[in-house]
Amino acid sequence: MLPHRRGVTIEWGDCDAAGIVFYPRYFAMFDWSTASLLAHALGMKKAQIIAHYGIAGIPMVDTRGKFHVPSTFGDEVVIESRVERFGRSSFDIYHRLLKPDDAGGEVLGAECWETRVWVGRHPDDPARMKAVPIPAEVIAKFGLG
Amino acid sequence: MLPHRRGVTIEWGDCDAAGIVFYPRYFAMFDWSTASLLAHALGMKKAQIIAHYGIAGIPMVDTRGKFHVPSTFGDEVVIESRVERFGRSSFDIYHRLLKPDDAGGEVLGAECWETRVWVGRHPDDPARMKAVPIPAEVIAKFGLG
Amino acid sequence: MLPHRRGVTIEWGDCDAAGIVFYPRYFAMFDWSTASLLAHALGMKKAQIIAHYGIAGIPMVDTRGKFHVPSTFGDEVVIESRVERFGRSSFDIYHRLLKPDDAGGEVLGAECWETRVWVGRHPDDPARMKAVPIPAEVIAKFGLG
Amino acid sequence: MLPHRRGVTIEWGDCDAAGIVFYPRYFAMFDWSTASLLAHALGMKKAQIIAHYGIAGIPMVDTRGKFHVPSTFGDEVVIESRVERFGRSSFDIYHRLLKPDDAGGEVLGAECWETRVWVGRHPDDPARMKAVPIPAEVIAKFGLG
Repeated sequence: MLPHRRGVTIEWGDCDAAGIVFYPRYFAMFDWSTASLLAHALGMKKAQIIAHYGIAGIPMVDTRGKFHVPSTFGDEVVIESRVERFGRSSFDIYHRLLKPDDAGGEVLGAECWETRVWVGRHPDDPARMKAVPIPAEVIAKFGLG
Repeated sequence: MLPHRRGVTIEWGDCDAAGIVFYPRYFAMFDWSTASLLAHALGMKKAQIIAHYGIAGIPMVDTRGKFHVPSTFGDEVVIESRVERFGRSSFDIYHRLLKPDDAGGEVLGAECWETRVWVGRHPDDPARMKAVPIPAEVIAKFGLG
Repeated sequence: MLPHRRGVTIEWGDCDAAGIVFYPRYFAMFDWSTASLLAHALGMKKAQIIAHYGIAGIPMVDTRGKFHVPSTFGDEVVIESRVERFGRSSFDIYHRLLKPDDAGGEVLGAECWETRVWVGRHPDDPARMKAVPIPAEVIAKFGLG
Repeated sequence: MLPHRRGVTIEWGDCDAAGIVFYPRYFAMFDWSTASLLAHALGMKKAQIIAHYGIAGIPMVDTRGKFHVPSTFGDEVVIESRVERFGRSSFDIYHRLLKPDDAGGEVLGAECWETRVWVGRHPDDPARMKAVPIPAEVIAKFGLG
């Protein structure tokens, strides 16, 4: 499956007092890229995925970001995302944030690795979440089954 | 009832590229001041208020902020909050953000007015919210019944 | 001048524990709509506007939001923005957030009023900001001069 | 040097539609814990550190978060932070977020690793940043020189 790409405009409110993106905002962008990637592959928006599969969400358990070239407000970047692995109830995503360079190409602005879990509500306590198996049909949609 | 006061430290991530608080972050601070005010008056944290009264939340319907003197990261400010009015299912809050001045006093940094609604889940559709009457005991706790 | 319109996708991270947009995030969206409106009218991105006119920014001094119909993650909304008034150094903006309705039309989800100031760095203290007159050519670009 | 500890209250606006902390907000909390750790060790607030050492900031180049036990609004957590390594111009921080457990102890809610760089403005282009050596007196304050 080809990586999912989406364009993001860096906003004033994404930037800190040094004038560059405050890195927690990159994680928010990557989070929505994961939602977009799933929505694209499964043909359903995130709210529908949650309702359709009866899950509570896909919480993050482990994520790493490397920030190579800063961005600032007004920059138009692209985030390219793909699933790298499906386990029984966890899965790994890799994102690359690409910036246009002066030569008409793209430079790698940031990278992010994610491990998320497919979780349901705990049967004994709806306030708690519990890892559940990722449906085979979800994995199959990514050509990774 | 005396206004509720809480101290807030302005963080690097609250500030924008001009080096001052990005004003949407002030609204997040005021939002939590309202939660703190209610928790203090009702003797329950917000999660317990929601569970105890069976509500979905206290969503904002109308808010105004006036920003008089900017703050920056590291500033220690105080937010002073009080309920100004209870209606049948709506209520009004007023916040003042105070900054220490050079003379050992306080200067008014920002003000905020809020109108919120006490809402439950709609009986026919749990995804929708519906205004419900504010319990008399809630109003009484503020000495405004 | 026609109102400026831009599409915004509501993200998971824009929503709170009630599953609807956390209203400070609406203010962040409106803030960037103002930047987009100015960029469109002046033919320069916000960073270039700041550099070209030698200003420190356009800080908010007074803003009000009214929230009529909630939105949730995955919703595709439109924010329509226009300048309503130019004063000597302050100006007013009005935003409407429109959601598609089931009949193929648009419903008013939220409104926002802003008063901002055109500020430079204070000549005696670059850490301070000072209102300066809005250039006539800026006002003329909006057909409001 | 003992780890630096600070208390953080999880706010409504830190949480997502699953009712738990939206993980980018954890990174914002860890970011300010690093600022607090440096302020405590150097005896200066972050703004003064920036001014005193003539730097542009301490941008993040690589960070990883592991999220073990979720937190929700109203939770009172502690973030414990320490410098693990100083290089020529980069340094590593490790954070642990601790939650009270039912037995009166603490449970590990989240961990975070950071690599940051001590940067100045580029001499040829103030809009660009450039790694500069961390002053020996900074390193000495942490007992790591």
